[in-house]
Amino acid sequence: MIGRTAWAIAEGYIPGSSTGGGRAMESHETLCVLNPNESDATLELMLYFADREPVGPYRLQVPARRTRHIRFNDLSDPAPVPRDTDYASVLRSDVPVVVQHTRLDSRQAELALLSTIAFPGD
Amino acid sequence: MIGRTAWAIAEGYIPGSSTGGGRAMESHETLCVLNPNESDATLELMLYFADREPVGPYRLQVPARRTRHIRFNDLSDPAPVPRDTDYASVLRSDVPVVVQHTRLDSRQAELALLSTIAFPGD
Amino acid sequence: MIGRTAWAIAEGYIPGSSTGGGRAMESHETLCVLNPNESDATLELMLYFADREPVGPYRLQVPARRTRHIRFNDLSDPAPVPRDTDYASVLRSDVPVVVQHTRLDSRQAELALLSTIAFPGD
Amino acid sequence: MIGRTAWAIAEGYIPGSSTGGGRAMESHETLCVLNPNESDATLELMLYFADREPVGPYRLQVPARRTRHIRFNDLSDPAPVPRDTDYASVLRSDVPVVVQHTRLDSRQAELALLSTIAFPGD
Repeated sequence: MIGRTAWAIAEGYIPGSSTGGGRAMESHETLCVLNPNESDATLELMLYFADREPVGPYRLQVPARRTRHIRFNDLSDPAPVPRDTDYASVLRSDVPVVVQHTRLDSRQAELALLSTIAFPGD
Repeated sequence: MIGRTAWAIAEGYIPGSSTGGGRAMESHETLCVLNPNESDATLELMLYFADREPVGPYRLQVPARRTRHIRFNDLSDPAPVPRDTDYASVLRSDVPVVVQHTRLDSRQAELALLSTIAFPGD
Repeated sequence: MIGRTAWAIAEGYIPGSSTGGGRAMESHETLCVLNPNESDATLELMLYFADREPVGPYRLQVPARRTRHIRFNDLSDPAPVPRDTDYASVLRSDVPVVVQHTRLDSRQAELALLSTIAFPGD
Repeated sequence: MIGRTAWAIAEGYIPGSSTGGGRAMESHETLCVLNPNESDATLELMLYFADREPVGPYRLQVPARRTRHIRFNDLSDPAPVPRDTDYASVLRSDVPVVVQHTRLDSRQAELALLSTIAFPGD
């Protein structure tokens, strides 16, 4: 068995502008979730901010034996993620999953990337 | 002893285009495996996708006291890795190894890099 | 419960120059702290250098259910962080938090990013 | 106490060319070591390759309460690190330290960065 049922990402920031064409080159942050289990995963994501109460839970599904790379930009229920704003995330799952976080920043003409493994709960 | 026998990488994405000349500058993702043991490592890699069944196992060898940096771009048996497609990976080894994942993105004129330690199994 | 009360970051370097306009594009390093607890966190940050005694503690607060993304560039008490100088960090908290470290480098016309999870204490 | 006495880095690659002036912008990889202890650390670094026997140990010192950011480019005894060549590293220390690995790639006009926490031994 591989994975955990709780994960935290302390870094979060969606740049408010982009250069380059199309969805692939839009500045974005992605939550990459791998569910290698034989059962579907139901996830709850909470977002934390500097100066307001946490927002969520966002409810997400990752089917058995699948991965989903979810853009924070696309989250809308209960609320969209504000741009140009520091945030952080905690993800809880009913089955063990593996979580990684990636940002593509295209504010300038050439893109920049970062990626980090999320921090697993005990 | 250092290393683990199971590793997962939730992030995977090979950009479908490149700029710059030659293999070094081609957009690619790499699986870096270190086998510091005195015995050879036999690895099985499974790839997970958003909307189809997992593909694999890909069988890989890393000799004793060697490292291999394997491009996902070069995998072909049982199937090549699709470009511009989200995926994730689970690697299992018969001896403890250390695994890291790297992407070089040269879709735009100047390259971007990301790298993350894989997540170890228990 | 998720988080730890001690974290270390071996990498630290604030580039001494920037291109591009404004605070967002200034070369900087950030300490991202998530406090998902119901109680406020009081943090003490120590900075380590290659050739002088450690500097600190810097005292920081992260309220309950909040994240703070603190620029090393902005630290001033007991001393500002020197530019173009290698350093490292140890953070201690009175409640469990999650810590990540990010650099934005804009010395050249197009920015570069790196990010890494800090290393948790035992 | 924070840190470990064994660390591995599966990724290693020093680009063989650079653009931009001076040492700061030269393509390089760095081993960042933090020794937060009250006693000096003596380290032994072994380098692993794809197709030859490991090279080392490289002997390194990190004084008590200091950090050292050591460029792989600068290692020379017992042998320099070849450029444009995949390698990996194992570091052992007589006291617990924290290790991180960083690459600055300036092969193209604008630099790219990556950084990852090393993988700790058990």
